Amino acid sequence: MSDDTAAGRGPAIILCEPQMGENIGAAARAMANFGLSDLRIVAPRDGWPNEKAEANAAKATHIIHAARVYDRLEEAITDLSFVYATTARDRDVTKAVRGPVHAAKHMRALEAQGAGVGLLFGRERWGLNNDEVALADEILTLPVVPEYASLNIAQAVLVVAYEWRKAGFEDPDAALPFAASDRSPPAGKAELLGLFDHLESVLDERHFFHPPEKRPTMIRNLRAIFQRQQLTQQEIRTLRGIITCLDGKNHRPKKPVTDNGEA
Amino acid sequence: MSDDTAAGRGPAIILCEPQMGENIGAAARAMANFGLSDLRIVAPRDGWPNEKAEANAAKATHIIHAARVYDRLEEAITDLSFVYATTARDRDVTKAVRGPVHAAKHMRALEAQGAGVGLLFGRERWGLNNDEVALADEILTLPVVPEYASLNIAQAVLVVAYEWRKAGFEDPDAALPFAASDRSPPAGKAELLGLFDHLESVLDERHFFHPPEKRPTMIRNLRAIFQRQQLTQQEIRTLRGIITCLDGKNHRPKKPVTDNGEA
Repeated sequence: MSDDTAAGRGPAIILCEPQMGENIGAAARAMANFGLSDLRIVAPRDGWPNEKAEANAAKATHIIHAARVYDRLEEAITDLSFVYATTARDRDVTKAVRGPVHAAKHMRALEAQGAGVGLLFGRERWGLNNDEVALADEILTLPVVPEYASLNIAQAVLVVAYEWRKAGFEDPDAALPFAASDRSPPAGKAELLGLFDHLESVLDERHFFHPPEKRPTMIRNLRAIFQRQQLTQQEIRTLRGIITCLDGKNHRPKKPVTDNGEA
Repeated sequence: MSDDTAAGRGPAIILCEPQMGENIGAAARAMANFGLSDLRIVAPRDGWPNEKAEANAAKATHIIHAARVYDRLEEAITDLSFVYATTARDRDVTKAVRGPVHAAKHMRALEAQGAGVGLLFGRERWGLNNDEVALADEILTLPVVPEYASLNIAQAVLVVAYEWRKAGFEDPDAALPFAASDRSPPAGKAELLGLFDHLESVLDERHFFHPPEKRPTMIRNLRAIFQRQQLTQQEIRTLRGIITCLDGKNHRPKKPVTDNGEA
């Protein structure tokens, strides 16, 4: 999928009877981190609006303000074609169980067809009931360690939103907000060989490579150290400055002495 | 990588001057969710132990109790070979920048060689300083939407721990804690054809397929509905019971009437 679909509408995040405003806010923040914006809340315990939701949303207050609130789950999903029910517990119902990678890819494909998708999350303490799961098409669960399966709502939203965002890029690294800093261009082999010559001649003056029959191997190992890290031009200049400094000799050509004796 | 390495030691999670005990606890909980256990804390603002850390760790209190505390970051990384510095901001330093997928794969590979790995996370408000980043080998960043780049520490730990866990399984679905429920075996074609015969004969009796020239197409479309979902044996029995019920006729062979008139 090309980069320009990465900003697609994204799945609706449906919170079913969330108990704590803090969690609604944190869920909105997690949505914003990874490009989701359609928040739907079914019968929030503390009503709506909710100050704690707004306070915990960080910069994602626009998601809180645009959130739609419903009395019943059925109302929250009428415009959707496909709903995943997120649950940490096995359910005695014949539905496919998917992980976030599969779900993200599938949601992107459905979106490309213009179909509305939703991700359903349950209550803090006990998740979704079986009737709510029955309204969903498939079950989504995270690859947790079974003994420590409990994530809070916002964390579950975060992981799925993260996978959805990644799935919008062919190259996952294209999804990163910044790349390695390029303060200096990479050194060319001429500069690298200049470094080798400089260092090796200084070390030869000090008989560093002994016994002489070991010199070729030591030279190769030494060059491997510097070859491996893709030194930049600036870094080679820095290393050569260090070698010069340690060498102790002044390698700059002497300036002619003026009439008053200054160099 | 085979499944039995999924439980590998995992990277050390190093929190640099964390300000809030709640975040330390939440980070420990996120570690436990995905199988990490080596928590290291450098100069926690509120000292150690920290009640809020313990209270917010959910079932992961063992990670809190085993956490190692250091005065300086250098001490926390002495036994490690490779450290990722997690940061949301571009840094003016020549280091590779990786996403969580790459980092997880790389960490697994290093682990397989017996090398110790660490993931470094900074302070809540402003992350890591440049000297701390300089102690790391590479930079790790998450594929966030740049305008909403801020995750809290536990959430950043969660995403990276999640990718690490996934990277321990060849098949991501093998990492899920449960699979689809198999309450009934899949129906065989004989049972499916029995369903088709039943339904289609009942519908023929009611002249459902009209005009007659459309019947073959309508039959194919109807069969496609039931064919597509891999019905189980129980589900076919249920559907046939529904057809029978709607049909209104009693298809069971009549029992012989007894002398007193009962069937």
